[in-house]
Amino acid sequence: MVIENFFRPRSIAIIGASNERSKVGYSLIKNLEKFKGKVFPINIKRKTIQGRKAFKSVLNVMENIDLTVIAIPAQFVKKSLEECGKKQIKAAIIISAGYSEIGNIKEEQELINLANKYKIRIMGPNCFGNVNPYINLDTSFSLSMPQKGEIAFIAQSGALWISLVEYSLNKFGFSGYASLGNMIDVDFADCIEYFNKDKNTKVILCYIEALKDGRKFLNSCKKSEKPIVVVKVGKSDAGAKAALSHTGALAGSYEIYKAAFKQSNVILADTLTEALDKSLLLTQQNIRGNKVVIITNGGGTGVLTADLCGIKNLNVIQLQKIIKSLNKFLPEDWSHNNPIDIVGSSSHKEYKNVFNILLKNKSIFDFALVILNQQKMINIEKVAQEIINFRKKSKKGIVAILIGGKEIKKAEDLLNKHKIPNFFDIDRAVNTLKGLN
Amino acid sequence: MVIENFFRPRSIAIIGASNERSKVGYSLIKNLEKFKGKVFPINIKRKTIQGRKAFKSVLNVMENIDLTVIAIPAQFVKKSLEECGKKQIKAAIIISAGYSEIGNIKEEQELINLANKYKIRIMGPNCFGNVNPYINLDTSFSLSMPQKGEIAFIAQSGALWISLVEYSLNKFGFSGYASLGNMIDVDFADCIEYFNKDKNTKVILCYIEALKDGRKFLNSCKKSEKPIVVVKVGKSDAGAKAALSHTGALAGSYEIYKAAFKQSNVILADTLTEALDKSLLLTQQNIRGNKVVIITNGGGTGVLTADLCGIKNLNVIQLQKIIKSLNKFLPEDWSHNNPIDIVGSSSHKEYKNVFNILLKNKSIFDFALVILNQQKMINIEKVAQEIINFRKKSKKGIVAILIGGKEIKKAEDLLNKHKIPNFFDIDRAVNTLKGLN
Repeated sequence: MVIENFFRPRSIAIIGASNERSKVGYSLIKNLEKFKGKVFPINIKRKTIQGRKAFKSVLNVMENIDLTVIAIPAQFVKKSLEECGKKQIKAAIIISAGYSEIGNIKEEQELINLANKYKIRIMGPNCFGNVNPYINLDTSFSLSMPQKGEIAFIAQSGALWISLVEYSLNKFGFSGYASLGNMIDVDFADCIEYFNKDKNTKVILCYIEALKDGRKFLNSCKKSEKPIVVVKVGKSDAGAKAALSHTGALAGSYEIYKAAFKQSNVILADTLTEALDKSLLLTQQNIRGNKVVIITNGGGTGVLTADLCGIKNLNVIQLQKIIKSLNKFLPEDWSHNNPIDIVGSSSHKEYKNVFNILLKNKSIFDFALVILNQQKMINIEKVAQEIINFRKKSKKGIVAILIGGKEIKKAEDLLNKHKIPNFFDIDRAVNTLKGLN
Repeated sequence: MVIENFFRPRSIAIIGASNERSKVGYSLIKNLEKFKGKVFPINIKRKTIQGRKAFKSVLNVMENIDLTVIAIPAQFVKKSLEECGKKQIKAAIIISAGYSEIGNIKEEQELINLANKYKIRIMGPNCFGNVNPYINLDTSFSLSMPQKGEIAFIAQSGALWISLVEYSLNKFGFSGYASLGNMIDVDFADCIEYFNKDKNTKVILCYIEALKDGRKFLNSCKKSEKPIVVVKVGKSDAGAKAALSHTGALAGSYEIYKAAFKQSNVILADTLTEALDKSLLLTQQNIRGNKVVIITNGGGTGVLTADLCGIKNLNVIQLQKIIKSLNKFLPEDWSHNNPIDIVGSSSHKEYKNVFNILLKNKSIFDFALVILNQQKMINIEKVAQEIINFRKKSKKGIVAILIGGKEIKKAEDLLNKHKIPNFFDIDRAVNTLKGLN
């Protein structure tokens, strides 16, 4: 499968490799410093690039080339691509811009014709390269290599990737990244198929401006054994217009996309934050469903959370079956209802008691939203520990809402260590769980 | 006006004052340590409470008492309230629970009758006290006094307050807090009227489960010269049910509330986070409107932001008038559209150029959403400085979206110092600005 050439190449040619720090071709070589395969800088004028032997053309390289990255002004791309064809290179990433995104349809068609003629698969043009941290492959001009992780990110955007990687450092990692740009050939479906087979990937996250071949995309999603989380723009006219001038994408009717996604097992997120939160959750907890139980030591936060759950079509379950058991272990003025408000005077013991009752009635819920409001009497770390034990024993989806000051930090660290998502924002927590059924 | 007795008392009696650390009455005395008025602990058995002289009843206090706080078991409240009446105390906060929230309607009515008989205004029962950091008044049993600030918080919730204060420390402050509990007398309208006159308050934030007298509330909002931000539960059945068991509140139809709020100049927030973000923004920037211009150095984040703005009824304005001016100062491949995508290769200078053009065309927009994706070439602090200058000169609403790693921190600090809200989450930024027209 040629797509492997993009993500697991043994040799790469960089067309437009440069010694000038301000050029993209400089970063491209620099970012491959730790790549274990071979790197061939292609530069028409220089004999060496950043200490590596340079070549005038891919045709001058005597060895096999799995992947080429093209980062030269658009008017020179055709000639280079033709040479790649003659060299029988099977995969080309075209970073160069100046095609359909600014109305140059004809030039873009010429790239397609060349690709067909020489049977080269193309990622781009107007794209941002790709990344595989497991082999130190970075054909983007990002600032940092992401941590090795389990989320594959496929996107019609580049700058987003750079800043997202910086944000993710010391928080979470990626299994790979592909920037599709104007998407004249390699598309979401191709990458989904690849990441579905990739053993490092657990969740596939897509940022979509528009799909060119909707059917192909949906088929790849239906076939995928891994969760596919999608954030799709074009919900509003303003977004659709913006997408058009970004990658020349026709965003299309969001409602139609939504219906099609639902039938194809795609998990749709409304925002980038929600998409990231959902992806992380799904790498950590293999969960689906919509039956939620809320446990809180604060009435107001419980009410707010239940209210949002209701709006977002989560089923705030009835507790009839377990009310009597809860009565035995909770203060008289507990809420007698879901949210299970154990009231502010409770300690980690009441949390534990509730968890134990839920463990005996695992069929009634899919997720637990556990809310901790910092209070005088409570040992926050002990509550965190009880949440961790509950997750271990129940295998259910657990998301925590922690509201408080710096004392909350230790609980956050503990929960993070045990891969239990936790938020200050009630809406982030609820959005993470919504729509997973 | 008696409501002043609640927020600016010169003397307070604490009925149920205690030496036992586990009792609410202990915290109440403790939290008044720095209060500059007089504090009279009332305890039927003890002669001193935490070193202060204690009294058997308010009737034994020979001095005037502006405010009494009652924190004893419900069965003893009536007798104490009667004594407060005889002492001619005008304001009572009843923290004791066990009334309508658990179905004890009759007992609650008896409190109302007593209040009417003696003309005592009551906050509560089942409430959490109140706070005025400007005079070190804290009749709640919170962990910390909040920083002095400009947001007044009126709520039908207590635990939320404790944890929110902890969260707010070193971030923002409050001008006051009132917990209304079952709200048999003092209500949102009374507090809004008070805070509207309070010189420390700039914005009034209400967490509402239900209103008993909608007309009175809406009138107080219409009369208010200060923005009133409301987060109202009961959007879903699950939320309405939860509110009922929390404070006995009948949440009512959210749509009816929504329509009424709109007519009364209330700013409605969908979530607690949004309500806080909006309140903070409105203490910092006196802005209204819905015309938004988006400036970004990343296409994808620009598209996502525009898309959300469209959904949230913000007007992503057309740029016809200034396209030519922008062409002069931006790279050829800028988006030629709103979002103004200055593309990833731009520096703080391009941001500045765009800001300068907007300054000359101030009438076309109400808000600017300035997005900064961390990139190789960009000096993040310099961009932050340009944003600050732009805010100073334009007086328009400015919210920043910063996406990146630890290098972002300095820009965050700089923007915070100059009271420019900034977020990683695109949705938080957009939600902060939505619905301010």
